[in-house]
Amino acid sequence: MKQFQADEWKVIEDGLHLKENRLAESMMSLGNGHMGMRGNFEEDFSGDSLQGTYVAGVYYPDKTRVGWWKNGYPEYFAKVLNATNFIGIQVEINGQNLDLAKANVKDFKRELNMKHGYLLRSFTVTDEQNRQTQIEVIRFLSIDDKEIAVISYRVTPLNYVGEIKFTPYLDGDVRNEDANYDEKFWLEVSKAVTPFSGVLTLKTKKLDFLVTTAMKVAIDGDVIGQVEVYEKEKYVSNTITVKANANKPVTLFKYVAVTTNRDYQNEELEKIANLRVEVAYNQGFNSLFQAQQQAWESRWKESDIVIEGDIAAQQGIRFNIFQLYQTYDGEDPRLNIGPKGFTGEKYGGSTYWDTEAYCLPFYLSTSDPSIARNLLIYRYNHLEKAKENAAKLGLKGALYPMVTMNGEECHNEWEITFEEIHRNGAIAHAIYNYVNYTGDQSYLSEYGFEVLAEISRFWADRVNYQPQKDVYMILGVTGPNEYENNVNNNWYTNRIASWTLEYTLEVMDYLKANYPSRLKDLIEKLALQDQEIEKWKEIIAKMYYPVEENLGIFLQQDGYLDKVQLFVKDLPKEELPLNQHWSWDRILRSCFIKQADVLQGLYFLNDQYTLEQKKNNFDFYEPRTVHESSLSPCVHSILAAEIGYEDKAYELYLRTARLDLDNYNNDTDDGLHITSMAGSWLSIVHGFAGMRVRSGMITFKPFIPKAWEAYSFKILFRGHLLKVSVNKDEVIITQEQGQSFEVKVYDQMVTILENNSVKITTQA
Amino acid sequence: MKQFQADEWKVIEDGLHLKENRLAESMMSLGNGHMGMRGNFEEDFSGDSLQGTYVAGVYYPDKTRVGWWKNGYPEYFAKVLNATNFIGIQVEINGQNLDLAKANVKDFKRELNMKHGYLLRSFTVTDEQNRQTQIEVIRFLSIDDKEIAVISYRVTPLNYVGEIKFTPYLDGDVRNEDANYDEKFWLEVSKAVTPFSGVLTLKTKKLDFLVTTAMKVAIDGDVIGQVEVYEKEKYVSNTITVKANANKPVTLFKYVAVTTNRDYQNEELEKIANLRVEVAYNQGFNSLFQAQQQAWESRWKESDIVIEGDIAAQQGIRFNIFQLYQTYDGEDPRLNIGPKGFTGEKYGGSTYWDTEAYCLPFYLSTSDPSIARNLLIYRYNHLEKAKENAAKLGLKGALYPMVTMNGEECHNEWEITFEEIHRNGAIAHAIYNYVNYTGDQSYLSEYGFEVLAEISRFWADRVNYQPQKDVYMILGVTGPNEYENNVNNNWYTNRIASWTLEYTLEVMDYLKANYPSRLKDLIEKLALQDQEIEKWKEIIAKMYYPVEENLGIFLQQDGYLDKVQLFVKDLPKEELPLNQHWSWDRILRSCFIKQADVLQGLYFLNDQYTLEQKKNNFDFYEPRTVHESSLSPCVHSILAAEIGYEDKAYELYLRTARLDLDNYNNDTDDGLHITSMAGSWLSIVHGFAGMRVRSGMITFKPFIPKAWEAYSFKILFRGHLLKVSVNKDEVIITQEQGQSFEVKVYDQMVTILENNSVKITTQA
Repeated sequence: MKQFQADEWKVIEDGLHLKENRLAESMMSLGNGHMGMRGNFEEDFSGDSLQGTYVAGVYYPDKTRVGWWKNGYPEYFAKVLNATNFIGIQVEINGQNLDLAKANVKDFKRELNMKHGYLLRSFTVTDEQNRQTQIEVIRFLSIDDKEIAVISYRVTPLNYVGEIKFTPYLDGDVRNEDANYDEKFWLEVSKAVTPFSGVLTLKTKKLDFLVTTAMKVAIDGDVIGQVEVYEKEKYVSNTITVKANANKPVTLFKYVAVTTNRDYQNEELEKIANLRVEVAYNQGFNSLFQAQQQAWESRWKESDIVIEGDIAAQQGIRFNIFQLYQTYDGEDPRLNIGPKGFTGEKYGGSTYWDTEAYCLPFYLSTSDPSIARNLLIYRYNHLEKAKENAAKLGLKGALYPMVTMNGEECHNEWEITFEEIHRNGAIAHAIYNYVNYTGDQSYLSEYGFEVLAEISRFWADRVNYQPQKDVYMILGVTGPNEYENNVNNNWYTNRIASWTLEYTLEVMDYLKANYPSRLKDLIEKLALQDQEIEKWKEIIAKMYYPVEENLGIFLQQDGYLDKVQLFVKDLPKEELPLNQHWSWDRILRSCFIKQADVLQGLYFLNDQYTLEQKKNNFDFYEPRTVHESSLSPCVHSILAAEIGYEDKAYELYLRTARLDLDNYNNDTDDGLHITSMAGSWLSIVHGFAGMRVRSGMITFKPFIPKAWEAYSFKILFRGHLLKVSVNKDEVIITQEQGQSFEVKVYDQMVTILENNSVKITTQA
Repeated sequence: MKQFQADEWKVIEDGLHLKENRLAESMMSLGNGHMGMRGNFEEDFSGDSLQGTYVAGVYYPDKTRVGWWKNGYPEYFAKVLNATNFIGIQVEINGQNLDLAKANVKDFKRELNMKHGYLLRSFTVTDEQNRQTQIEVIRFLSIDDKEIAVISYRVTPLNYVGEIKFTPYLDGDVRNEDANYDEKFWLEVSKAVTPFSGVLTLKTKKLDFLVTTAMKVAIDGDVIGQVEVYEKEKYVSNTITVKANANKPVTLFKYVAVTTNRDYQNEELEKIANLRVEVAYNQGFNSLFQAQQQAWESRWKESDIVIEGDIAAQQGIRFNIFQLYQTYDGEDPRLNIGPKGFTGEKYGGSTYWDTEAYCLPFYLSTSDPSIARNLLIYRYNHLEKAKENAAKLGLKGALYPMVTMNGEECHNEWEITFEEIHRNGAIAHAIYNYVNYTGDQSYLSEYGFEVLAEISRFWADRVNYQPQKDVYMILGVTGPNEYENNVNNNWYTNRIASWTLEYTLEVMDYLKANYPSRLKDLIEKLALQDQEIEKWKEIIAKMYYPVEENLGIFLQQDGYLDKVQLFVKDLPKEELPLNQHWSWDRILRSCFIKQADVLQGLYFLNDQYTLEQKKNNFDFYEPRTVHESSLSPCVHSILAAEIGYEDKAYELYLRTARLDLDNYNNDTDDGLHITSMAGSWLSIVHGFAGMRVRSGMITFKPFIPKAWEAYSFKILFRGHLLKVSVNKDEVIITQEQGQSFEVKVYDQMVTILENNSVKITTQA
């Protein structure tokens, strides 16, 4: 039986799975953009667990660990930082400490409620005297007031009269499991504890991030005696003893506020945290809980995808949307979307090219344009650091980092850090994507052109001219397919580099025509020379692209066809995933592909290639692709949909949407694959529904997977809120907000009036 | 002024160079094959120092440290292990602890005497009361009795009467500077201390190596009071106070014995060490010192190279020969030649392909054939481990490790560990080299064929067939030039792989003709199938070799000519060495070559290529080669000599011979480049003198560098001891041992009679 039950709106773990607890902890993570935590238990737990509480933007520059230093490696790796555990409540029932790894537990249920944004846990424990106690815990992180977390911990003696002792605490003596040298990263600044409240301020050993955590505790029950207060280094607690009568629940409410010096002055942190927690305490659990439910309901109104007839698919897509919004809601332009969000430590850094390639289109269509714009400005603000990064490699212009928290590169694998430079192209393409979708061309003159010009400069310096062949080449790169390292002329990299130059020139022409004096200023600021522009044009004209004409395909890189050509279907099942079974050199010299590479280019530059080209390349590459990156299936699903391979598109969608729910890659115990979750949304909207935006026009070419009865989603597009519903018979597009305008469905123009719908017959 | 003075027989440091102390410590290292140490001071020293004492074959499996784990990496890295410091003598002069980093020091001299195998140090210190003390220290490691070390520490008050306090000690509380997780590797087993003696036994935390160090102390001087004994964890000492009169030297003699459980039972170690040190003590310093001098003199008789007219070159070659013999004398077939010998911790492991490629020819010509045979048997004994290593990569046959102590791979860089597989070819070629030089074909049936067959099996599985081109290829390798990683069809690798198959088949034919029943047994033991042999033949016939026909060169790898083609001479001086100034990707995509790659093949398979081929390839590759491996200049020097580029040959010889003396690569502070030292010898004998052995015939084609007046060397060849002397006018070959036989000089056959010489006019 699966660990998690299918449900439209919930992720349900029925029964305690001690061995798979880390996996459940990942699945049951909560977040609200400001902070988050894994689905750890409040009470003590001696079983296997990855304890994790994370505060957005608070990180630690852990000293780099490598076997063999290479010139150019960064000195530190920015770690997602495990912060003060504020959910902790020790529970003693009749003198016995509650620990689910040791207790006799029945009817255990852990349930992530996605509709209303909270975590529910309930179970019954029975002691050696057959005394039964029922427990129900509700926890949520407010999305209205992001500094607030609330827990309701209810204990009901079922068949006895006894004593329950609660010890709610704040514990800052935590560590990162992935610390490179097993160090702890926090120092205590101050603490205070009084009955029913406590506060703890910690500082990171480097960079001086301060985080204050304040708690206030309320009890619904008969308190016996005094509340005991206790403190030790980086720790404060209360101990409260309550008389418990049979079938009379007693409940402890723990209100927490978390403030950081990213938002306030150091000396104000404690005051503000105390104030915030006081407000929450006064508001009370029920009121806060209701507000939370309403807030999530209205969020779903704009971004839900409904699937009828396929509960697993429905659960999958909602889980993905829910986790994306838990991680990032775009309100703070200093933040970005970490690959594990608030669900684990792994990978570190907060920003990968995943943001531009996968997440941006999701936020473009489901949120106010300012959110996507914030994601672009984040990179604009890192431009100087990206220039420093290029200079480190001896190159001009800007090279954006592979992994970063603050704009500085922090990754340290030469084949990735120094060579996976195609990431620069995704950052340029995101600007195109944003402007193309929103029509907000002002972004180009305000921010976009500078970024494009510096990236173009990088490409122009990174290519090399090959005189015998009279072409420009790009040697020594790693493409999106990281199962090839240090290759020459990766088609995707060459193409996205040349495309960047093309687009930069196009933007320049646009600025010349529309903002000539601003362009003049920008050219001066950038010290852009005419001969640079000429060089860009020459590179565009003479860029070398490896191809295989007989097969009508673009070649992933020089020499790819010298490999033994095999298909994934012919591999023994027990050797998959390859990255857990084959030595690295074997993977590298095989033809097997980790994730979309040539096909990533056909997805990004979708309108530049014919359907036949897409088909030829898909037919060649997909059977060689093991999809061992969470970013892989969605791109393939979208292209398969476009080509008309509906079953393939659906199969790959399921791999994307239920990657974590079904633990496909057997690594979800470390945390969820947050950034790839946007891929599930893309698979439905860009894939099944075939949504594209060209020249300001939005178009759809929907099909419906056989297993589904209907699906629908909402789209924000240039002031219009559209609901697109697809069933076996018809496509219905409803304009819920916005004025009459034209859209294209199956190459047919249709006008949708204000507050009105159009229906089109679904094409096979 | 240079830190080290040129001298025919010594390395002299005049004056104290506190900032460059590590460099001097490396230069002044002592070793005797069984143990060794850096040129550390006996007395306390608070300045910068890399303290290092090493015992051959005693290593530590330190937990592997990597940034990003790759499948197939070994769990540990075998570290050269810093062992009990047994040279330590604290010295207190008139109540003041002697520390050269703090004292007022004059006339400091540190002198490595290569002729007689000892280290001398002398200096004068003056205290604040103007009391002057002269100190002279002699230290050596006996090459007659390899477990014995001896120190004479002589203190002479020059202008006062006072007290000298000596505290000779054994200190096992040492660490490796390069420990991956800053751990200490030793545990105490036992210790004992009495006046004038002490003993300490330590055990490694893993693998249970035991090392016992015993000391006995003698004093030439008036001891005051009692000898104090002291012990703490992993430490024992004596403190002896001596009355010191003006101009009357007092001398402390410290005798040390070092025994290990590699040679004896655990329970005997202490007894034997005490016995050994007792014997040495009774023999006394002068007698041991004299024996040491005689032993080194007779070693030089067989292996010296004399250069007249160039003192720097003379010092260089003797330094290299001296350090090679200090590191390895071939008496223990369990040992091998570590890249840093006993001079530092860096790199770890004891065995690299350096042994086969560079050191073996040196020992072949300067030692009894059994020494070279021991080096081959060392690999034979590791055959099973090499098969396991191939299996880890999913391959058949044997892949010898890149770095090892016990046959297991311990390196952990994928591009090296998994891909620098050409090392397997060097191990096969060493068998050819040994048999070709010595004529000992019995080695093939006894050991050689098994190794060759398993290496051939590896190559046959590692190649892949490319059907369009009807060729076999080798993809994803790193050649000898480590400034290229993960390339396809490295010419050298393809060639040495195919050559291995050719030679294996040749040996098989030989065995068939001469040892048919042994061959039958071997085929059975190896389960060698006919179709395997057929496959080998097909691979030989269809191996693909990249070439550039217009230039008449073999191409280093596919795509090499797509790189921007530049010369080293055009690089800005301040960017050299590249590995200290360029980021790794920049090095990789440049055309610059770290060390001989195609040219390594032309050196190994020297008689298979024409002079024109050698010239074309040398002319193309050498100007692109930065020689940033210590193994590079010698191969180039030898080929330059063969082609007739005499000045180039000489220039490259100097880089090899004085690499450490002149600290060319700015890294000798970590330790000496031991294995490359054989290259200096090769440059003279194979290079300048043009020595080759073909079909049992030894040939010479000598030239003499312009700067030299004459040079001479000795060669052991199949029972003949030859002295070859070359001056501007004539080449004189003297047979010092052996019967009349024919040699070839400048393509001319000459017969050398027993105890006789021949003279031939030197050709320009």
